[in-house]
Amino acid sequence: MTDDKKLKEIEAKIGKIPQIFKDLKDLSPEMYEMLVDLDNMIWADGALSRKVKKIIAIAVAAALRDTHAVKEQTAGAKKLGVTDEEIEEGLRVSFLLAGMPSYMYGKIAVKDVMKRE
Amino acid sequence: MTDDKKLKEIEAKIGKIPQIFKDLKDLSPEMYEMLVDLDNMIWADGALSRKVKKIIAIAVAAALRDTHAVKEQTAGAKKLGVTDEEIEEGLRVSFLLAGMPSYMYGKIAVKDVMKRE
Amino acid sequence: MTDDKKLKEIEAKIGKIPQIFKDLKDLSPEMYEMLVDLDNMIWADGALSRKVKKIIAIAVAAALRDTHAVKEQTAGAKKLGVTDEEIEEGLRVSFLLAGMPSYMYGKIAVKDVMKRE
Amino acid sequence: MTDDKKLKEIEAKIGKIPQIFKDLKDLSPEMYEMLVDLDNMIWADGALSRKVKKIIAIAVAAALRDTHAVKEQTAGAKKLGVTDEEIEEGLRVSFLLAGMPSYMYGKIAVKDVMKRE
Amino acid sequence: MTDDKKLKEIEAKIGKIPQIFKDLKDLSPEMYEMLVDLDNMIWADGALSRKVKKIIAIAVAAALRDTHAVKEQTAGAKKLGVTDEEIEEGLRVSFLLAGMPSYMYGKIAVKDVMKRE
Amino acid sequence: MTDDKKLKEIEAKIGKIPQIFKDLKDLSPEMYEMLVDLDNMIWADGALSRKVKKIIAIAVAAALRDTHAVKEQTAGAKKLGVTDEEIEEGLRVSFLLAGMPSYMYGKIAVKDVMKRE
Repeated sequence: MTDDKKLKEIEAKIGKIPQIFKDLKDLSPEMYEMLVDLDNMIWADGALSRKVKKIIAIAVAAALRDTHAVKEQTAGAKKLGVTDEEIEEGLRVSFLLAGMPSYMYGKIAVKDVMKRE
Repeated sequence: MTDDKKLKEIEAKIGKIPQIFKDLKDLSPEMYEMLVDLDNMIWADGALSRKVKKIIAIAVAAALRDTHAVKEQTAGAKKLGVTDEEIEEGLRVSFLLAGMPSYMYGKIAVKDVMKRE
Repeated sequence: MTDDKKLKEIEAKIGKIPQIFKDLKDLSPEMYEMLVDLDNMIWADGALSRKVKKIIAIAVAAALRDTHAVKEQTAGAKKLGVTDEEIEEGLRVSFLLAGMPSYMYGKIAVKDVMKRE
Repeated sequence: MTDDKKLKEIEAKIGKIPQIFKDLKDLSPEMYEMLVDLDNMIWADGALSRKVKKIIAIAVAAALRDTHAVKEQTAGAKKLGVTDEEIEEGLRVSFLLAGMPSYMYGKIAVKDVMKRE
Repeated sequence: MTDDKKLKEIEAKIGKIPQIFKDLKDLSPEMYEMLVDLDNMIWADGALSRKVKKIIAIAVAAALRDTHAVKEQTAGAKKLGVTDEEIEEGLRVSFLLAGMPSYMYGKIAVKDVMKRE
Repeated sequence: MTDDKKLKEIEAKIGKIPQIFKDLKDLSPEMYEMLVDLDNMIWADGALSRKVKKIIAIAVAAALRDTHAVKEQTAGAKKLGVTDEEIEEGLRVSFLLAGMPSYMYGKIAVKDVMKRE
């Protein structure tokens, strides 16, 4: 399967591919290849749907206080049709396990993504 | 509503209540009250089911390398009927966002909980 | 007690309420209610004064490399009359337990807050 | 000033010196020297008392989910006369900024230290 | 190339393969396959030698306060001939960027591994 | 040895001194003194070269998702002659131990530093 087809597959799974991921094709082709395969495996519908996986990713990124990743994951999630209510309830788990700022950064990300897109 | 009834409600929602949570009733009654209400709100079925919330909690705890919390969450998840496959796919998201050890600690927790219960 | 009165109480305790906290009233009223009560409990004068609690919060946020939270906590602390020397000595504990960048982000926050206000 | 005198000074400031710190004298004398001076500076009474610094250290260690450091700091704090109520209120700040497990690990540490000593 | 040959290759590169990694072959064959390829790529001699990569891994694991990973990485490093002095100097970087406990957990791991093997 | 000479020594070892570090001379002279000595010890050529130490520092900062520190360390590394390939291979270790975003933030930092200088 060509790289471009693989990338299209990932986009269908995660909603939106970050620019830095695309840049990696030139910056580090070997890692790029590996990550394309990894992403294709991890985000596929399986025991959990890709939507649920996105909600998990937002909650995890928020718990890690990784505001950049929260925004990227949220942008993708929106394109897959994940609702604000679903993200809210995922973020509450982050609040409980990782504190109020985690939750707040998630809420800010949702607001930012809604405004931007 | 009495405290005992509230605690039963939480148990129905999260599968298993950690011992330290129960101890808190004596150690710090004011925090205990607050956390009982917080838990009852956060773990309720809503836009996401309590099962999905447990899978999120395991992924978040694993991403934080919080092996103690991973085990507690996994023990509760098992009682709610969350499957190994669902946990596996949630942990793969932790792997991607937080590294191989996160994933591994999740797998070890699942093995430990299965053996113990 | 009305919400507005509770919010005023929190402001007296923490010095300054972040915008996102206020937004939460519309974004997620249920969480807002809970957090208002939680904040009112946690920041009250007790065995520790609200000033000491703010110094702790700055040190914790710095240790977590949470530059956003460091700035919010520092802005509030300044309004409560916490001194630069007190923040400095709290940040030294963060330095020891969480590394030089933690300390540095705290120092940068203090400088930024002083300039801004 | 001799090393032994410096170490005694640190002990007076932090309540209890961890074994690994003492081992460092042989394992890595250069780092040991540096850390002795660093500890002597950071834990001295100043704008904040050594007791308040210990409470900060417990809150920071708990926020980092560093259960080992929480126990060491708590053991020292107890020897300096820090009360359970003071630790409790510091840990509530950790709860708010870093999540429920942070708080719980602090409570468990206090219980363990009380039993042991 | 057969799986066993790939595993032998990894062992040559990292010194020692953790048990949980081997268990993964049964627990999650798809992830196992992926991780075998990933490990083979990441740990190969290249612009950096496998020894230097191990020193980096110890410093990173220590900085993350991941005592389990520190021990696994140190055990592997020892088999590759990494010296105590090299680990010490890598851990000093962790000390500066992530605090004294990070450094201390590294030192404890080295002591433990030396005793055990 | 005068302070200026010590600072020059550090610059030779780490490639570039962050502005906040210089500001510390006025903001907190006591900490400044201590950190100058600490830096001079930690970054000296020894069992590991200063170049290898920089690669470790970039990997550690990336693993901690500390994008500010990643950029500072990368700017210094470039001045010491550390190559892109060496940073890439160090970041792969961060990827494995701390997840894809860690790696990505390192790659973004390298791109930013190259453009700026």
